[in-house]
Amino acid sequence: MLKALLFDVFGTVVDWRSGVAREAAACFAARGLNVDAAAFADAWRNKYQPAMERIRSGGRGYVALDVLHRENLDANLAEFGLEAAFDEAARAELNRAWEKLPPWPDAVPGLTALKARYAIAPCSNGSIALMTWLARYGGLPWDAILGAEIARDYKPQPAVYLTSAAALGLAPAEVMMVAAHNGDLDAARKTGLKTCFVARPTEHGPGQTTDLEPTSDWDVVAADLNDLARQLVK
Amino acid sequence: MLKALLFDVFGTVVDWRSGVAREAAACFAARGLNVDAAAFADAWRNKYQPAMERIRSGGRGYVALDVLHRENLDANLAEFGLEAAFDEAARAELNRAWEKLPPWPDAVPGLTALKARYAIAPCSNGSIALMTWLARYGGLPWDAILGAEIARDYKPQPAVYLTSAAALGLAPAEVMMVAAHNGDLDAARKTGLKTCFVARPTEHGPGQTTDLEPTSDWDVVAADLNDLARQLVK
Repeated sequence: MLKALLFDVFGTVVDWRSGVAREAAACFAARGLNVDAAAFADAWRNKYQPAMERIRSGGRGYVALDVLHRENLDANLAEFGLEAAFDEAARAELNRAWEKLPPWPDAVPGLTALKARYAIAPCSNGSIALMTWLARYGGLPWDAILGAEIARDYKPQPAVYLTSAAALGLAPAEVMMVAAHNGDLDAARKTGLKTCFVARPTEHGPGQTTDLEPTSDWDVVAADLNDLARQLVK
Repeated sequence: MLKALLFDVFGTVVDWRSGVAREAAACFAARGLNVDAAAFADAWRNKYQPAMERIRSGGRGYVALDVLHRENLDANLAEFGLEAAFDEAARAELNRAWEKLPPWPDAVPGLTALKARYAIAPCSNGSIALMTWLARYGGLPWDAILGAEIARDYKPQPAVYLTSAAALGLAPAEVMMVAAHNGDLDAARKTGLKTCFVARPTEHGPGQTTDLEPTSDWDVVAADLNDLARQLVK
């Protein structure tokens, strides 16, 4: 019997691209810089998978995503020729953009409805700190913060899903992973979790070409988190 | 500047003795057994510190409190001559008494008011699972579940307080430990946390002799969590 729902967060619950671009744009404007903030956000995010891959592959011990985000920010500023415009304090502040991401409009009401029936928690690659401050920013009503940090590894490594289910005292089949990314669900299903796909066709902006549709027979396909609540909380 | 409050839970936020006694009494009544449920709860709880001490001292690797509670339940049933009356399923069910403990009457409104200003999380010896299900049972509005399991050790070991503060990305001085136990606060203060004492003079029943008053100059002394909110959320 299903007892808990785990959620991917960046893209599935919150709109990281708009949020990061908004914070970056404010920094650029304050400095009189003419920089494409959405392109800056995309370039920052593009450094995300390679940074985690070093840890997943064993080439580096676990460090929290906040540290990877900061290293990637430094690289991104260099790429954009902006190194001189951002001192240490400004970089630390801009790195907190990831704690100020807007939830998709259906996220808070959907999660609130789902929480009435199921335990709900993020199973994100974000750290406990990042997930906690992000939840406070957007009003995400999590019961617990699970995911990468308690497993000390990064999705899609099986340990992240399995450690998160075990941290609730549940068997994998009692838990459903909810994500806007087919690859995340594929990994979750291999560990025995139930799966739910929610399309977020503008996560990467208007020209998105990936994850527009479910690519497998996931247990549930939902239009958004309100629709998921309609399907699961009868 | 204070940014987060960490809470001891058993005794400080919830009334473990009444809750465990109530669950045990229901089990005894269903079996026609005449057993003093409060004495049973006290005897079960008395095995708590020795069980954790083996882990704190390095004599045993970390196991979650749920496991220790279950081992202690088995021993308690033997002490009370009740072994034959509880099969495996009944023991597993009674062990979940710790997930069904009533919050003290001020706990939910007090935590809710405090959450408006500060991140709030348990820093308990209970596991993530136990704290999560207990929060869902009583409506405790935690932002995250911290404490023993993320540190893989038990209070009052310094790592439990320090790991919990670090998991929020905070320095110890940005965090306050709230507890009804002077010993807990003494350990927290040694790690650099701020401290708040809340008296719970009936935690151990009507004859309680310990922790009736603050025994040191803690940063804050509050009558209950509503009073703490009045003092901190101005």
